[in-house]
Amino acid sequence: MEFLVRIDVRLPPDFDETRKQELIRAEAERAKELARRDLVRRLWRIPGRWSNVGLWSAEDASALHEAIASLPLFPWLEVAVTPLARHPSDPAPPGEAPA
Amino acid sequence: MEFLVRIDVRLPPDFDETRKQELIRAEAERAKELARRDLVRRLWRIPGRWSNVGLWSAEDASALHEAIASLPLFPWLEVAVTPLARHPSDPAPPGEAPA
Amino acid sequence: MEFLVRIDVRLPPDFDETRKQELIRAEAERAKELARRDLVRRLWRIPGRWSNVGLWSAEDASALHEAIASLPLFPWLEVAVTPLARHPSDPAPPGEAPA
Amino acid sequence: MEFLVRIDVRLPPDFDETRKQELIRAEAERAKELARRDLVRRLWRIPGRWSNVGLWSAEDASALHEAIASLPLFPWLEVAVTPLARHPSDPAPPGEAPA
Amino acid sequence: MEFLVRIDVRLPPDFDETRKQELIRAEAERAKELARRDLVRRLWRIPGRWSNVGLWSAEDASALHEAIASLPLFPWLEVAVTPLARHPSDPAPPGEAPA
Amino acid sequence: MEFLVRIDVRLPPDFDETRKQELIRAEAERAKELARRDLVRRLWRIPGRWSNVGLWSAEDASALHEAIASLPLFPWLEVAVTPLARHPSDPAPPGEAPA
Amino acid sequence: MEFLVRIDVRLPPDFDETRKQELIRAEAERAKELARRDLVRRLWRIPGRWSNVGLWSAEDASALHEAIASLPLFPWLEVAVTPLARHPSDPAPPGEAPA
Amino acid sequence: MEFLVRIDVRLPPDFDETRKQELIRAEAERAKELARRDLVRRLWRIPGRWSNVGLWSAEDASALHEAIASLPLFPWLEVAVTPLARHPSDPAPPGEAPA
Amino acid sequence: MEFLVRIDVRLPPDFDETRKQELIRAEAERAKELARRDLVRRLWRIPGRWSNVGLWSAEDASALHEAIASLPLFPWLEVAVTPLARHPSDPAPPGEAPA
Amino acid sequence: MEFLVRIDVRLPPDFDETRKQELIRAEAERAKELARRDLVRRLWRIPGRWSNVGLWSAEDASALHEAIASLPLFPWLEVAVTPLARHPSDPAPPGEAPA
Repeated sequence: MEFLVRIDVRLPPDFDETRKQELIRAEAERAKELARRDLVRRLWRIPGRWSNVGLWSAEDASALHEAIASLPLFPWLEVAVTPLARHPSDPAPPGEAPA
Repeated sequence: MEFLVRIDVRLPPDFDETRKQELIRAEAERAKELARRDLVRRLWRIPGRWSNVGLWSAEDASALHEAIASLPLFPWLEVAVTPLARHPSDPAPPGEAPA
Repeated sequence: MEFLVRIDVRLPPDFDETRKQELIRAEAERAKELARRDLVRRLWRIPGRWSNVGLWSAEDASALHEAIASLPLFPWLEVAVTPLARHPSDPAPPGEAPA
Repeated sequence: MEFLVRIDVRLPPDFDETRKQELIRAEAERAKELARRDLVRRLWRIPGRWSNVGLWSAEDASALHEAIASLPLFPWLEVAVTPLARHPSDPAPPGEAPA
Repeated sequence: MEFLVRIDVRLPPDFDETRKQELIRAEAERAKELARRDLVRRLWRIPGRWSNVGLWSAEDASALHEAIASLPLFPWLEVAVTPLARHPSDPAPPGEAPA
Repeated sequence: MEFLVRIDVRLPPDFDETRKQELIRAEAERAKELARRDLVRRLWRIPGRWSNVGLWSAEDASALHEAIASLPLFPWLEVAVTPLARHPSDPAPPGEAPA
Repeated sequence: MEFLVRIDVRLPPDFDETRKQELIRAEAERAKELARRDLVRRLWRIPGRWSNVGLWSAEDASALHEAIASLPLFPWLEVAVTPLARHPSDPAPPGEAPA
Repeated sequence: MEFLVRIDVRLPPDFDETRKQELIRAEAERAKELARRDLVRRLWRIPGRWSNVGLWSAEDASALHEAIASLPLFPWLEVAVTPLARHPSDPAPPGEAPA
Repeated sequence: MEFLVRIDVRLPPDFDETRKQELIRAEAERAKELARRDLVRRLWRIPGRWSNVGLWSAEDASALHEAIASLPLFPWLEVAVTPLARHPSDPAPPGEAPA
Repeated sequence: MEFLVRIDVRLPPDFDETRKQELIRAEAERAKELARRDLVRRLWRIPGRWSNVGLWSAEDASALHEAIASLPLFPWLEVAVTPLARHPSDPAPPGEAPA
């Protein structure tokens, strides 16, 4: 099942710079791992903000939560999840669209 | 450039049924044409509503507006557009992600 | 997978009374059928309103949408869906909680 | 009487880890106790957030407040309560639905 | 149990005047009856609007819904209910405050 | 003139416990004094929150502000005031309803 | 006591023109009468809208409601009232500021 | 003085087509006239909607209101005005920026 | 040109008391000076809050911003400005209403 | 492509004054550089706030994000971006309006 996930990062501006860079590096690696396991399919930045919107795929809401909660920045994230249903006009290639 | 487009259809419940079916059929054909021209890349239904969220691709906001305004249901649509920027962790295959 | 579904009925106050009673009767029958198939598990009225909140269970968002769209009052409904994930402290008896 | 209770935990991300783990452990025990006394009937996690929505049962709003205020994390909770009325189509087994 | 109930009347401005006066008269009689049965304890007008806020008392949310739904203007009402719990500093005379 | 006053207490969760208890004790005494002077007529707790809604009576908005601002917790309060007008169906005993 | 009153006129765009002009003329006369009785002290238009914000003065919320409800356009008005308290730095000449 | 003006057109979808085309033609002519008189300086379409945002220039809010109210579509417009002040980093050529 | 200005003071409750009193004293003096120069014409307190709403008069938005930014409490203020246009029914004495 | 960008600066009021002045100076220089490269075309202050609204021009959302993220105050900014499409009545001189 696919989900649209909007994420706003609320790390304080005066956060320790070294730890911030570590968190960002770890976040990128985790995102790559989630993409490799097909949990994250697309990811975009919202221009002008430390925010992204992504297309996620997971067995159900429990598996999705587990994946999002595994992000190193999770304690600083504000997350909004929209469940997605199949649309008859979705141009996705077979096998990629929700059943 | 990619855009996230949320569309809510506000056709009145007591709309003439024949005309409604014609509009829906024309809308589906138009969506297929927009997909063929790579203007619509993905389309999902918001469960429980006559609403969809889609991943659109267009040269710019003017080309996007022209494409959305070409939908037969356009006069009854409530549309919200979010411009999308490239995210370094986007797992999209090369050539598909925003440059 | 379980979903929390909030439904507000927007039938106009001056709707034809006979058709309204028919729709309500058909709605109740459909709700009974959805309950029999375990798609609707609980249903409550929001006091003071023609609104309800329900605990639904469906394979995924597509199956949920199909079930909600099958309601006779669907064209007059305003629906908001919240996907639900498993909570470690959920007191639900085994087999009923989300896996 | 049943209530729908939405809880968002606002514990600061940089909260002392030891105390946080203690609070979470105490919270889980308290939730178990509230479930045992039939005050909490179901509990779900909102995916992507440190939030839950629960089905609570209490004599009245005063008893409900007392139960929620007994949660160890109470000072950090943002809570929204929706009172629930009986719905004629509620599939709950007799004895479980609100009278 | 006491409830705070905010009611906005959405009768269209061009409603038939005779029927409107009948509805208002019936509404006032019904309100008097609800007051007599101690379901409505206080009622205030929100200045500048066809709206009121009231202090209601009912066994539970189901009884409250039944009372509100019995109002002749119910199909045109937008209603918001806030459940009320006992406050230790409530100056209400004994027997009137929520237990 | 009567006012409906909603108060949310925003005392930080990690506030000094001794000072907090002192403030709460002083707040309760002040509330009792305001009740004695008929400035506060009823007070309810919003279940699940450190919030209350109250029925206040004051000469005008200036006298009401003075009374609210005299609360020891005032610097931490978020307050919303709704002015109340007389409703013809108010069941209040004579002398208690707004003139 | 002074009140800040925001009024949005919701007369439908396709309202009968003759009746509309009559209502507007009657509204202006009524406003003049309310000004003469010191109920309306100032009145401004919100640019770009059929809306105004005004400084009203009335004995209490009941008198204010009576004055607003006397406006010929009242059934089409959306009104929001803010009660005003005395400010120590108000430059109003003596006798004009709230006591 | 410059203003940012957001305009949403609320013409009903089933509006008479001939009259609609006349209104649109008249609106365009009026916009051209307002531009000629330097009241409208820039105008953009909000993609996906029958909405625009414009940079207007007027002596004050009264002159701005007069200009907006002169638009043939005015009765169907929802308008929001933001007053603009000079910014020290505005790259506008001298004579064009607000004094 | 006149403006309606709503100001909410967001000084933290645990702000240093001496500095707070100094700021309040300086704010009052500045307000008196702004009143003397006819920039502030009326000022009211919003009951129950550290907030005020005022009637300001300034050449344009730039002059208004300069005046507001000169307030000693400015860094802690949340300010919302509404531009005001002349209303034909404004009872203001000649010379005081916006031209 | 043009964008409307609203920026609210959320620098804490008690921020170190020296660093604040440095940031403001660097921000102004960066804004000048962005203007020189035609990324920022107009910039206005929202009166009464540390906020601005600007007309930006960029290849696409990715280039826009890069430009905004290059602002020295970026970690303290709350930014909202509206993509702009060509309007047939835009009075912009040729070569300046969006294609």
